[in-house]
Amino acid sequence: MSHRIASIPGDGIGVDVTVEARKVLDAAAARYGFSLEWEEFDWSCERYAETGAMMPEDGVEQLSGFDAILLGAVGFPGVPDHVSLWGLLIPLRRAFQQYVNLRPVRLLPGTTSALAGRTADELEMVIVRENSEGEYSAIGGRHNAGRPDEFVLQESVFTRVGVERIIRYAFELARTRSGHVTSATKSNGLIHSMPYWDEIFAEVGARHPDVRAEQCHVDALAARMVQAPDRIDVVVGSNLFGDILSDLAAAVTGGLGMAPSGNVNPSGEFPSMFEAVHGSAPDIAGQGIANPVAQILAGAMLLDHLGETVAAQAIRSSVDEVLAAGKVLTPDLGGTSTTTGLGTAVAETLR
Amino acid sequence: MSHRIASIPGDGIGVDVTVEARKVLDAAAARYGFSLEWEEFDWSCERYAETGAMMPEDGVEQLSGFDAILLGAVGFPGVPDHVSLWGLLIPLRRAFQQYVNLRPVRLLPGTTSALAGRTADELEMVIVRENSEGEYSAIGGRHNAGRPDEFVLQESVFTRVGVERIIRYAFELARTRSGHVTSATKSNGLIHSMPYWDEIFAEVGARHPDVRAEQCHVDALAARMVQAPDRIDVVVGSNLFGDILSDLAAAVTGGLGMAPSGNVNPSGEFPSMFEAVHGSAPDIAGQGIANPVAQILAGAMLLDHLGETVAAQAIRSSVDEVLAAGKVLTPDLGGTSTTTGLGTAVAETLR
Ligand SMILES: CC(C)[C@H](C(=O)O)[C@@H](O)C(=O)O
Ligand SMILES: CC(C)[C@H](C(=O)O)[C@@H](O)C(=O)O
Repeated sequence: MSHRIASIPGDGIGVDVTVEARKVLDAAAARYGFSLEWEEFDWSCERYAETGAMMPEDGVEQLSGFDAILLGAVGFPGVPDHVSLWGLLIPLRRAFQQYVNLRPVRLLPGTTSALAGRTADELEMVIVRENSEGEYSAIGGRHNAGRPDEFVLQESVFTRVGVERIIRYAFELARTRSGHVTSATKSNGLIHSMPYWDEIFAEVGARHPDVRAEQCHVDALAARMVQAPDRIDVVVGSNLFGDILSDLAAAVTGGLGMAPSGNVNPSGEFPSMFEAVHGSAPDIAGQGIANPVAQILAGAMLLDHLGETVAAQAIRSSVDEVLAAGKVLTPDLGGTSTTTGLGTAVAETLR
Repeated sequence: MSHRIASIPGDGIGVDVTVEARKVLDAAAARYGFSLEWEEFDWSCERYAETGAMMPEDGVEQLSGFDAILLGAVGFPGVPDHVSLWGLLIPLRRAFQQYVNLRPVRLLPGTTSALAGRTADELEMVIVRENSEGEYSAIGGRHNAGRPDEFVLQESVFTRVGVERIIRYAFELARTRSGHVTSATKSNGLIHSMPYWDEIFAEVGARHPDVRAEQCHVDALAARMVQAPDRIDVVVGSNLFGDILSDLAAAVTGGLGMAPSGNVNPSGEFPSMFEAVHGSAPDIAGQGIANPVAQILAGAMLLDHLGETVAAQAIRSSVDEVLAAGKVLTPDLGGTSTTTGLGTAVAETLR
């Protein structure tokens, strides 16, 4: 069995950590009897600086034949985010209908939560973020530019298809976990989009009577993540709410350096794409000190998605083992290891 | 000196806690030689149930002559939030151009933070929330209703006037505190509204070279509140971002039961309105167990706004004293006192 993987290391520490994730995935493949055929793409802000585009015009086409994509991180000083991200990450998410952004978090061994007195099993949750529409819309613009009465409009777009499928995905996922799903809303403030979201959440809920469904305003839910994370398991949220809540969930558990993320096309019609939640951190890029754990765990999610669930689980166990041992840790974890050192330790534990 | 105050206890525990705040404010007035002339308004979901409107048609007019407004909380099961809030709270915020929503938080004595190992002075901050436009807009609606291709649009509106004045307010406030202001952005995802927000933040920043200005994506800022709250002092955010971040800030400090909020019209042309951040909590209403601290502290903010800063400070000190003594605490604080018991204790400490 062989899987074709496109690797886009991107910018900054994205490059540093993607090498390590590849190393670990290759070790897992060797151990569990499948092979990975990698192809690397240099799409990045560097490429943008040279050519004026983050990726080639036929970028989407070039990737469409792969079984999955491993993405490093994009972003570099001088290239505005709305160029770098809207020139690569976001178009890929949309072209490949990766409408689910799956963000599991848990407290990893040897790390401590920012919260007082919480055990690891109170801190395990997954954010199911809508990844194709909502608040992230290109529709909008400026009126009366340069005048005192200037204003900007920004449209949010919620389609029945888009809202229904992400909520359905969250209900199905909840069935395989605690049987409890919490929807992030804000229908008291956003009086068009969020009552609509709530309406569809109720409809889908009625078709899943075995799942305990609850909705909570996003402000209160953010507070709950800090005050009662044990009352949260599966959270479903819009593009923006899911973005905020998943960073927060990562922060209350092991931190952003540890959180993986999958941009998933559940039908399998198009490739799914896996990445760390953290950014490209240009200030520490190339120094060999970035923590590769999030990207390695993103690699495990990629294998899960390809059906290599035993290998994926073995990667997670190896990460846990290395972290628990506490001997090979990057500086952010209180150690003196390099990025490569930590990646190699995980790969060796796997073998 | 006499001040005319409109009191709108509203719904649920709003009624329970507003009585106590009045009691404390009256005690402060007696002690510091001014008087408060109260008028009470029964505007609420109950009124809506009876008359079909949260407030009378000339509600805004009726309030406009007051020096300030003390609001309890609005919301009751059966009355959709977008009726109750958009029929009272939000129109008042807008009619009186209370464009600043000021939300200070700090760790009160005798309470513990949800975060591990944080001292009280690392947990003192203030959220300056835009309160009149942004994501909370009535513009939008449903297209293709009932069809599979149905969708909903929700418009966000950012005006130059609206963005500039809130950011300016935050810079001025930062000058009186740490000299550091952090702007919540999301220009990498919301590519019309947030780059505009950032542009104006930079312009206003250039006119305040003595203030250290920084911007941070709202997702990363939420994470920072948990991981490094000591790096935050004054935060300025849009209506939605400010809402989420202020609940979060309350959660990492004393909790929502302790957080006050001011809807401020800085010019003084119209009355400002003060309220607790928490909601009406109908499940515990009328039982005499609600924690009145947030509403009492909202009352202190009201006095600050009227220039009675010595009395306001005395109220805060009295709250601190009662909490530190730990003898008269409501159940949420681990005690057995009633709402009235705690309110009376603060009032008596003041005298
Ligand atoms: C009640 C609701 C509309 C509100 C808001 O989001 O403004 C509340 O959460 C608040 O923060 O005052
Ligand atoms: C980079 C940015 C556009 C992005 C997002 O908000 O989607 C990032 O924060 C993420 O969560 O993947």
